[in-house]
Amino acid sequence: MQNQRKLVLYIAMSLDGYIATKGDDLSFLSVVEKEGEDYGYQAFTDTVDTVILGRKTYDKVMTLVDTFPHVDKETYVITRTPKPSAGKIQFYSGDLKDLVFGLKNKPGRLIFCDGGAELVTELLKLDLIDELIISVIPVLLGDGISLFNPGRPERKLKLLSSKAYESGLVQVHYVKM
Amino acid sequence: MQNQRKLVLYIAMSLDGYIATKGDDLSFLSVVEKEGEDYGYQAFTDTVDTVILGRKTYDKVMTLVDTFPHVDKETYVITRTPKPSAGKIQFYSGDLKDLVFGLKNKPGRLIFCDGGAELVTELLKLDLIDELIISVIPVLLGDGISLFNPGRPERKLKLLSSKAYESGLVQVHYVKM
Repeated sequence: MQNQRKLVLYIAMSLDGYIATKGDDLSFLSVVEKEGEDYGYQAFTDTVDTVILGRKTYDKVMTLVDTFPHVDKETYVITRTPKPSAGKIQFYSGDLKDLVFGLKNKPGRLIFCDGGAELVTELLKLDLIDELIISVIPVLLGDGISLFNPGRPERKLKLLSSKAYESGLVQVHYVKM
Repeated sequence: MQNQRKLVLYIAMSLDGYIATKGDDLSFLSVVEKEGEDYGYQAFTDTVDTVILGRKTYDKVMTLVDTFPHVDKETYVITRTPKPSAGKIQFYSGDLKDLVFGLKNKPGRLIFCDGGAELVTELLKLDLIDELIISVIPVLLGDGISLFNPGRPERKLKLLSSKAYESGLVQVHYVKM
């Protein structure tokens, strides 16, 4: 078990726990945008060779960019609608536990869960997330898409680190106990 | 305005934003209980002379203790059901804005909002909370009473400080912008 690859959630949320507005607007993230400061994102993705994300999050990302940001990595888009793969991007509509177990048991680097809330909830229900790196943005969004949805079991966490940045972003890093 | 008293929310929540289980169970707080460590609570309450809290929170507190913990402070329990005051505890069913404006314009020390979620939501809707001191407990509770309820306006915050404790509790302190 010790040698299994880890599945890591790396995501930003507002202090009140939202990852976007109801209309999928991410502009609240701009309060922490600062030239030359990526809050460890590049260093983190350098340790990743596999990405899994939900289909709605994938579609949202693709409205913002021309090329999927993780083209160099093995990517699984979790969807209910089967679709042929495109380059290194596979659209996966099978059993989530089978996929993640399979990935964890293959040799490799970190597996990055890039959201969204629906996938995170499923992964937490199945106890498949090993680490959470959450960047808390200094804003109360007031409403939106909650990162954590109810109906999950209780899980104790161990804090690995916590770092406050000049912009007011606080990044907390937990590992499951 | 600069000399007005501040209304400060000081509260603990799980990483997934809950202040208690649906059944009002607070036992998740025990993961950070440690002899001789109060996470700054005493130092904070020493700067407070007035407490406001919701009626459900008050009732919950009174099931846990014999004597209300803030008997030395002017206390307002916000309730829909008028009730005669008891010692320094007043049951208030009038306009919340009037109460808080009145308190802020009187000379005095900090005003402590001790929860719960319903009162916090109302105070945030009215933009009456000046500072938030939130102790994030290293646990995903999975379900429960959310501290932050939807339907509030967006508010930008300024991070004053962030402190990680050995138990894994991370205390963040924000002031409204």
